[in-house]
Amino acid sequence: MISVIILGAGNVATHLFKAFNNAGNIVVNQWYNRNLKPLQPFKNDVEITKDLSQLKNADIYIIAVSDDAISKLSSQLPLENRLVVHTSGSVSLHKLDKKHQRGVLYPLQTFSKNTDLNFKNVPFCIEIEHKSNFNILKALVSSIGSKSYKVNSEQRAALHLAAVFVNNFTNQLYRIGHEITESKSVDFNILKPLIKETANKIDTLTPYLAQTGPAKRNDKKTLKKHLGSLDKDIHKDIYELMTKSIQQTHGKKL
Amino acid sequence: MISVIILGAGNVATHLFKAFNNAGNIVVNQWYNRNLKPLQPFKNDVEITKDLSQLKNADIYIIAVSDDAISKLSSQLPLENRLVVHTSGSVSLHKLDKKHQRGVLYPLQTFSKNTDLNFKNVPFCIEIEHKSNFNILKALVSSIGSKSYKVNSEQRAALHLAAVFVNNFTNQLYRIGHEITESKSVDFNILKPLIKETANKIDTLTPYLAQTGPAKRNDKKTLKKHLGSLDKDIHKDIYELMTKSIQQTHGKKL
Repeated sequence: MISVIILGAGNVATHLFKAFNNAGNIVVNQWYNRNLKPLQPFKNDVEITKDLSQLKNADIYIIAVSDDAISKLSSQLPLENRLVVHTSGSVSLHKLDKKHQRGVLYPLQTFSKNTDLNFKNVPFCIEIEHKSNFNILKALVSSIGSKSYKVNSEQRAALHLAAVFVNNFTNQLYRIGHEITESKSVDFNILKPLIKETANKIDTLTPYLAQTGPAKRNDKKTLKKHLGSLDKDIHKDIYELMTKSIQQTHGKKL
Repeated sequence: MISVIILGAGNVATHLFKAFNNAGNIVVNQWYNRNLKPLQPFKNDVEITKDLSQLKNADIYIIAVSDDAISKLSSQLPLENRLVVHTSGSVSLHKLDKKHQRGVLYPLQTFSKNTDLNFKNVPFCIEIEHKSNFNILKALVSSIGSKSYKVNSEQRAALHLAAVFVNNFTNQLYRIGHEITESKSVDFNILKPLIKETANKIDTLTPYLAQTGPAKRNDKKTLKKHLGSLDKDIHKDIYELMTKSIQQTHGKKL
């Protein structure tokens, strides 16, 4: 049995609590938040507290609060030499107080509060200060059906950065697609199968090999027509820059 | 029974032939290509020809050749007043010779030659000159399990343009994610569940509502750290421009 205490009440904390609470070999000893209100719906399932001085013992303390609050909260914990991890992609392990055995348990996924999440689809990147802590974190992750990957600080930073490209920026391209179709009263749903297939294609092809379209072909007529038909300057800029990027990747003359 | 003749031997032509050939109420009377070689594997399933003067009768002639070749081929067809459609997203209906009853049957999907395609996931955009031709094209599309959408020229152009953003440009963001992870010897597979979830999220949320991340939060510390850690200038440019686009959409001060 692995015992954990969760600190924080945001999306990640809430999804982790639900998953841990359902797992056979994990017990959540306590759930802390500085404000009890978001924890109230769970008070029959777990002991909730807003008082750090009341913190119990556990194998792993998981700090799932906003990036800026991690450092201070970790210092305030009345603990010494216990395994304390945060869940951020971008915060250094060394922002955790050095009185702890420090680690990071970074779930590389996009979390919405109201959408149920299948943890099978959430890879966890594990970074640790003491090698001896790897196995318990790996066992924790495996108990909720997730895969774990051991990474160092530089690798976690690279994943967090790459995630911005493939998640936030990609979603913004969907948004632009939505704006373009809406401006001509076209149903955005028509684009959804293409969006799904684009994401699924990389299961069988690298993104390099999966590329198609006017930029890769250097189809100047279409490129010119597209640029001319975009209304917003920033959409033109994105069109030009992404075209340039594709052509650099695929070795076309610019 | 709907009879069709396919002209061309690229990805779209080949996928359409296979789907039509398997459909109960469609008969492919002939498959034309100026070079017979790519059609040889199918010669037991369909009459193949490279001689336009031997073209038979059919309800619908489907020109699935490269954009630049559509106009010339349509003029060469020894037909008059027959329903002739092309399958391009970007070519005007009026590039088809006016001796025909003209139309466009644009499958909005990404086609790979060697990947089997489920036509349930391929929406067809139908554009026609004569209203009376809509029903037979709709029936054709429905026979292979696909949805059809009636569009005008302007709407088809908007879809083609939006498709470049959500398919080609998105795939290039995946490519950049691949480059970033590879540069730190991280397994790109770790990003795949996030890529899928990003695409699936828009089933329940608009891209506007689905947006998260440092650009939307205007998290200046992370934005600065990310920019500083990108090696390639073009990746920095894309990071800055996509961040600006997200912040314009979500009304952040720049």
